[in-house]
Amino acid sequence: MYYKHHIFFCLNQRPGGEDCCAQHRAQEAFDHCKSQVKAQGLAGKGQVRVNKAGCLDRCAGGPIAVVYPEGVWYSYVDKHDIDEIVESHLKNGVVVERLVTPPHLGR
Amino acid sequence: MYYKHHIFFCLNQRPGGEDCCAQHRAQEAFDHCKSQVKAQGLAGKGQVRVNKAGCLDRCAGGPIAVVYPEGVWYSYVDKHDIDEIVESHLKNGVVVERLVTPPHLGR
Repeated sequence: MYYKHHIFFCLNQRPGGEDCCAQHRAQEAFDHCKSQVKAQGLAGKGQVRVNKAGCLDRCAGGPIAVVYPEGVWYSYVDKHDIDEIVESHLKNGVVVERLVTPPHLGR
Repeated sequence: MYYKHHIFFCLNQRPGGEDCCAQHRAQEAFDHCKSQVKAQGLAGKGQVRVNKAGCLDRCAGGPIAVVYPEGVWYSYVDKHDIDEIVESHLKNGVVVERLVTPPHLGR
């Protein structure tokens, strides 16, 4: 596995003011996650990659991010949630259960 | 696993004419992959998702795409390569070895 944990944030911006992750401060969450991962020395090959993504098509659970190869989906609210994902999951490999997207939430 | 195969295409566009996947027809490959997956009835929950992504930071192997949860990275050239990835990997679960990104290729 090239990256131990590869997290993708939906940063999709829908036209015409339609609801989307971008309207729920997804860019800010992405930036925060990326800077935290870098600051903690977790970034790079064999470690963690924080990635921009288009629509992940689970909008009902948004704002949303997915961590691979585990395939763990998160619905986050604010920077504190991101901090917990970084510290627990990306650093220590422990899934943050309280933030996991409910399985029935899709498009 | 919400998606059986989740493929991410780097569509990153670097400023100032710097080399990047976007200069190697990544958008066209993404569009072709998405339409093929849809046309073959492979798209959706429990099946395949074709996703836009920002820089995957393996530019030396670009244009590039990664399939999760397997963590298989592909360096493709043209639509025929995409057709093979769709038919072999996304439809039948068989990795297209000739297109796998050499492990030493990173940033």
